[in-house]
Amino acid sequence: MATLGDIGLAAAINSLITFVFLFAFTILRLQPFNDRVYFPKWYIKGVRSSPTSSGSFVHRFVNLDIRSYMKFLRWIPSALKMPEPELIEHAGLDSAVYLRIYLLGLKIFTPISMLAFAVLVPVNWTNDTLLLESLKSSNLEFSTIDKLSISNIPTGSNKFWAHLVMAYTFTFWTCYVLYKEYEIIACMRLHFLASEKRRPDQFTVLVRNVPPDPDESTYELVEHFFLVNHPDHFLTHQVVYDANKLSKMVEKKKNMQNWLDYYKLKYERNSSTRPICKIGFFGLCGKKVDAIEYFTSEIDKLSKEEVTERERIKRDPKSIMPAAFVSFRTRWGAAVCAQTQQTRNPTLWLTEWSPEPRDVYWQNLAIPFVHLTVRRLIITVAFFFLTFFFMIPIAFVQSLANIEGIEEAVPILKPFIEVPFIKSFIQGFLPGIALKIFLIFLPMILMIMAKFEGFVSLSSLDRRAATKYYIFLIWNVFLGSIIAGTAFQQLDTFIHQSVNEFPRTIGIAIPQKATFFITYVMVDGWAGVAMEILRLKPLIVYHLKNMFLVKTEKDREEAMDPGSIEFAAYEPKLQLYFLLGLVYAVVTPFLLPYIMIYFGLAYLVFRHQIINVYNQQYESAAAFWPNVHGRITVAMLISQVVLLGLLSTKRAANSTPFLIALPILTIWFWSICKNRFESAFRKNPLQEAMMKDTLEHIKEPNLDLKAYLLHAYIHPIFKKLNDYENVADLDEIDHENVLVPTKRTSRKTTPVPSKHTFSPPPSLIDFCEEDKL
Amino acid sequence: MATLGDIGLAAAINSLITFVFLFAFTILRLQPFNDRVYFPKWYIKGVRSSPTSSGSFVHRFVNLDIRSYMKFLRWIPSALKMPEPELIEHAGLDSAVYLRIYLLGLKIFTPISMLAFAVLVPVNWTNDTLLLESLKSSNLEFSTIDKLSISNIPTGSNKFWAHLVMAYTFTFWTCYVLYKEYEIIACMRLHFLASEKRRPDQFTVLVRNVPPDPDESTYELVEHFFLVNHPDHFLTHQVVYDANKLSKMVEKKKNMQNWLDYYKLKYERNSSTRPICKIGFFGLCGKKVDAIEYFTSEIDKLSKEEVTERERIKRDPKSIMPAAFVSFRTRWGAAVCAQTQQTRNPTLWLTEWSPEPRDVYWQNLAIPFVHLTVRRLIITVAFFFLTFFFMIPIAFVQSLANIEGIEEAVPILKPFIEVPFIKSFIQGFLPGIALKIFLIFLPMILMIMAKFEGFVSLSSLDRRAATKYYIFLIWNVFLGSIIAGTAFQQLDTFIHQSVNEFPRTIGIAIPQKATFFITYVMVDGWAGVAMEILRLKPLIVYHLKNMFLVKTEKDREEAMDPGSIEFAAYEPKLQLYFLLGLVYAVVTPFLLPYIMIYFGLAYLVFRHQIINVYNQQYESAAAFWPNVHGRITVAMLISQVVLLGLLSTKRAANSTPFLIALPILTIWFWSICKNRFESAFRKNPLQEAMMKDTLEHIKEPNLDLKAYLLHAYIHPIFKKLNDYENVADLDEIDHENVLVPTKRTSRKTTPVPSKHTFSPPPSLIDFCEEDKL
Repeated sequence: MATLGDIGLAAAINSLITFVFLFAFTILRLQPFNDRVYFPKWYIKGVRSSPTSSGSFVHRFVNLDIRSYMKFLRWIPSALKMPEPELIEHAGLDSAVYLRIYLLGLKIFTPISMLAFAVLVPVNWTNDTLLLESLKSSNLEFSTIDKLSISNIPTGSNKFWAHLVMAYTFTFWTCYVLYKEYEIIACMRLHFLASEKRRPDQFTVLVRNVPPDPDESTYELVEHFFLVNHPDHFLTHQVVYDANKLSKMVEKKKNMQNWLDYYKLKYERNSSTRPICKIGFFGLCGKKVDAIEYFTSEIDKLSKEEVTERERIKRDPKSIMPAAFVSFRTRWGAAVCAQTQQTRNPTLWLTEWSPEPRDVYWQNLAIPFVHLTVRRLIITVAFFFLTFFFMIPIAFVQSLANIEGIEEAVPILKPFIEVPFIKSFIQGFLPGIALKIFLIFLPMILMIMAKFEGFVSLSSLDRRAATKYYIFLIWNVFLGSIIAGTAFQQLDTFIHQSVNEFPRTIGIAIPQKATFFITYVMVDGWAGVAMEILRLKPLIVYHLKNMFLVKTEKDREEAMDPGSIEFAAYEPKLQLYFLLGLVYAVVTPFLLPYIMIYFGLAYLVFRHQIINVYNQQYESAAAFWPNVHGRITVAMLISQVVLLGLLSTKRAANSTPFLIALPILTIWFWSICKNRFESAFRKNPLQEAMMKDTLEHIKEPNLDLKAYLLHAYIHPIFKKLNDYENVADLDEIDHENVLVPTKRTSRKTTPVPSKHTFSPPPSLIDFCEEDKL
Repeated sequence: MATLGDIGLAAAINSLITFVFLFAFTILRLQPFNDRVYFPKWYIKGVRSSPTSSGSFVHRFVNLDIRSYMKFLRWIPSALKMPEPELIEHAGLDSAVYLRIYLLGLKIFTPISMLAFAVLVPVNWTNDTLLLESLKSSNLEFSTIDKLSISNIPTGSNKFWAHLVMAYTFTFWTCYVLYKEYEIIACMRLHFLASEKRRPDQFTVLVRNVPPDPDESTYELVEHFFLVNHPDHFLTHQVVYDANKLSKMVEKKKNMQNWLDYYKLKYERNSSTRPICKIGFFGLCGKKVDAIEYFTSEIDKLSKEEVTERERIKRDPKSIMPAAFVSFRTRWGAAVCAQTQQTRNPTLWLTEWSPEPRDVYWQNLAIPFVHLTVRRLIITVAFFFLTFFFMIPIAFVQSLANIEGIEEAVPILKPFIEVPFIKSFIQGFLPGIALKIFLIFLPMILMIMAKFEGFVSLSSLDRRAATKYYIFLIWNVFLGSIIAGTAFQQLDTFIHQSVNEFPRTIGIAIPQKATFFITYVMVDGWAGVAMEILRLKPLIVYHLKNMFLVKTEKDREEAMDPGSIEFAAYEPKLQLYFLLGLVYAVVTPFLLPYIMIYFGLAYLVFRHQIINVYNQQYESAAAFWPNVHGRITVAMLISQVVLLGLLSTKRAANSTPFLIALPILTIWFWSICKNRFESAFRKNPLQEAMMKDTLEHIKEPNLDLKAYLLHAYIHPIFKKLNDYENVADLDEIDHENVLVPTKRTSRKTTPVPSKHTFSPPPSLIDFCEEDKL
């Protein structure tokens, strides 16, 4: 076991790494040529233009102003300065609420750790159990951290009452904070939804599984059905086309266009030889052809195919999916339709509140409803195997990727690999690499699974993938670190253990693993967050694109990748810290400060990123909060069960039975919160809808809602293709549709201020000016 | 272990008991003075009048017609003759669907047992495992039944493949039958709801937790809220008064009236001494008073109090509960309101589909919504203790109720008790009696629990109590019989066993318990059903009342207790037979015929009772079916897990892993059925509502719906009290309100045929004539 010194050293190393990352960031962000990597949000909002427009050649790329280096920490107060309402206006409610998760961590753990250090640490410290045990058996070592933990209390001591009381106090505090937070966020959500402008999804309901009719087309069928069953409220509707094939074509064409641009640029720079490429597998093999000619002809071919395909979609009745976006005259009508069952067969004419247009995941609208049950079963089984048996294929890959294998495949490398130092390095490195790659790709795999399950909005896909990732992390990281061995071995252990052995096995191991988790928090938490702010991948990709593809300012804008909060990957990871904090709060309070530092640092970093970098794909108005709340409650439950197991091994017979009420009360708390708040995130109250309707009717009695809703739910691929024909009116629609205006052309490309120009509030402008120094 | 001969003997004895009961029934039912016990349904429908009206004195009480005794089995074809649509018309959908559960049992188990006897019995029989084992150890006995069971297959044999294939076949067959049945019943329900007449609950929504308002009364508040939020559909509403106190008074007064009648009758018969009673605890102690005077004055006092209380309820705003029955112009409006959320706070203005007026459990409408969560927690904990620790208070009572205790309390009995034979009888009998009494009262206890939880309709109370009873039976009867010991000892066993030991422990015990369960089926199933048709308790109570209270024909009508299907008590018990059948289908097929006989007999008996006796309290249109379906699915799961455990102890390593897919597929089947059918039992499709509205509007354009709904949801106590003032119009309302007309005065009391007179179809009349012979 690690001593306090070891931990100190690890902390020092990790802090150093973290600071190196942060320092690199502070330097890189000041360089003008990185401007689009570190401030894309402002470009998208149109309040910042490329620095290339002014100054000398050097100034355009490197910042030589010494003063700005002096103030290299200015980004921290800048990140904290923007008040929350402005943040919501600037980046949307999702981002603002996401930040509150980190704040919630601080709110929960600050009083808990103060109390734990004031009460539990002295109680634990004033015992000699570990000292006596180590005297008895010489091979038992213990560290200062263990002296601070519950391990140091003698078996059967009455001092466990202190831990019991603390467990209750911590649970009540956590519940209190969670309840308050749920209340605040439900309120924020309702306020946000109430204060937002008119949006198409307020009036629209997504209808799925429209039954086929031999006499009518889907379009007519939908119209007739709603005219009959919602006669006073039905307004208009749009059927859904299966444009998946067309999307792929457009995607392919865009890719070809990129290659064409690259070769053209190459040819421009060196006009002596015409560029040549291979047309085989990924351009690696096959016949050599003239690249420019080849791609030009390919693009022509694709363009023609595209036109044919578009015509086919518009004409072929088979390309109309049994789904439609149905719009109503009033919000009340839409709210009613979304919440009720339409026909006696509950699998037909399924209505649900429509996601906002940019949140729709169009590919999945084409899935027939009957497939969904089968798909869900397949994914459940697949996820089970992924969680418990993911080590098997990795072990297989590892067995293939050994040094002999490499030497055989690429004989040239043989003398190089045989150098002892390199050989040992590879041997140490290779086995881990397959696992690392798997873990990096895991969120992507889970997202593919969620997509396969057939969810129709990006936000629900994110939530679903996050839930799966959380289960994976709990089982493979949390339990996997406690009980050594693969997940399947753990499963086997659990199956062969009795029910009340579960918590004991974990309970005994928990205090011993404190130092491991402290290191984990530092490596994965601290350094991970610092990596996030550095944006290494977008930095490299942007500069590569800039070098090979960018010709015009528009290209540069496209090369910019603002990214977004990857909810499905980040949220489960941060939930792990809640779990660790709650589990160790009573057992080894020494872990808490590390977690608090993580939450503080992450809050700072993500606030900066949300303000300056991320551009959210959709706005779900914090629809993810019930999941976040539920997972923290699960973490509480796990911590209570673990403590129960731990105390039962310590023979604290007097106090242990009193712990049993704790999980019951926690489950009850969860159900209260669910009853009280969850429907604010799932349903749409009629009163609110009626209020907005009435207000709108008074304000704009002559509003032409039908025209407003006409093109709202057109497949984005049609919008993109139409873009070249009649940009003006589509642009109009686009602006109206987005919840928080995020996408507009930069000043450079639209020098004349459009009528929609967004004039940022003074504080925003100050903030930007300061940053650009 | 019992041999085939033992089982034969037990079967003979139990068959005899069953036949004795049935024979007693056939004799008793033919006696005219029992007519109101065995045919109350026909009296209530008004198509049968008291036999006292004609014939000689003796003929009025005893049937002396020999011919009718010859045809004593006529009730069986009579019970089977009525076709299902007529049965639904006669007794309601609930009863008809309840009968289908028994038919479902026959449908599932007839092919299964045929297949099991054709395939599994030969496979099991052609082994000598048990013979060899019994030769090895002389103390091991085995019976012929065991030779027919899976125990006879040698460990590790390949013959287990037969059992595996059969397990799959049985599961698929059960799922198929269940799916078809669910489909049929959903269809029946929708048809029933669609074809029924106009009823108040089609237009009405129950609103609970109306928030208090300082400026408006609840009445005004509700009106304003719905006028604003459902402007086009709101029609009228009725607030709910807290009349629980008044109900109690009326109840008490009725009780007093009974006593007064009793003493008056006594005085009439023997006018020499005025009857005297004690006014203390249950009339057992206290001052002696003149009974007639005492009760007359008490009733006067109560009548006055009643009037004051009625006035108070009408005037005091505190007696108005924050709940209301809100009625709409159209069924569509009501369907919309019942399915949507009204305000942003999901715990206020809660709307749900209103139960039909006679289904409302008025007492619980007065419970504030905030109490419900707490009540539910309390009941959950209480039910846990009831299930696992019910033996503790019973053991305590048993320790008190010993012979010494009785001798001390009632010294006179001492010489009598000390007789050796009586002493040993009491000693053998007493310990069990506390348990028996508990088990008899258990459904009542569970119903009280359900009422405490705050459900507002009788049908939901029944369903809730049934679920609890099922859990109790599974744990204490099924598992309790397999693993000896109290429920708590079982729980302890399970906690200390590993997860994959669970199914093994049960799996090993299952084949050994086959003979026990065969006896259980005969005693509890066969004899229990025969007891049901005999109606011993109503028979005795009716004749006692007839002797002491009845003066007029109206009194006699009130003395008649038709009873109803006690869903909460009967359904869980019959589910136990599904469980036994499914568990033993693969293990010991010999049990199946016993269960099939039970289902057949019960079907016959309950069909007879439903036609001739029961008068349902409410009509829920088979709303209980999802519960029935769910429990049979649970039984399938249990049987699969048990088989898994059993096969794993038999080291059938080749075949066991293939069983794991079975529970997964079963759960999947359950979720498919839930998606497909459940909402037909929970929600009200808008299309149906719109169709009925349109039809009605065409048929009766001038219908005054407001007048129709005016008194629909008045507390029954007010109706009862008003009864004496203006019977005519309330009677009118009553007739309109009831779903299936069940309550009407007999011909005797209303000799002139009313305009509502129900003329039974010819077959019905035949049936009655025949029976009355």
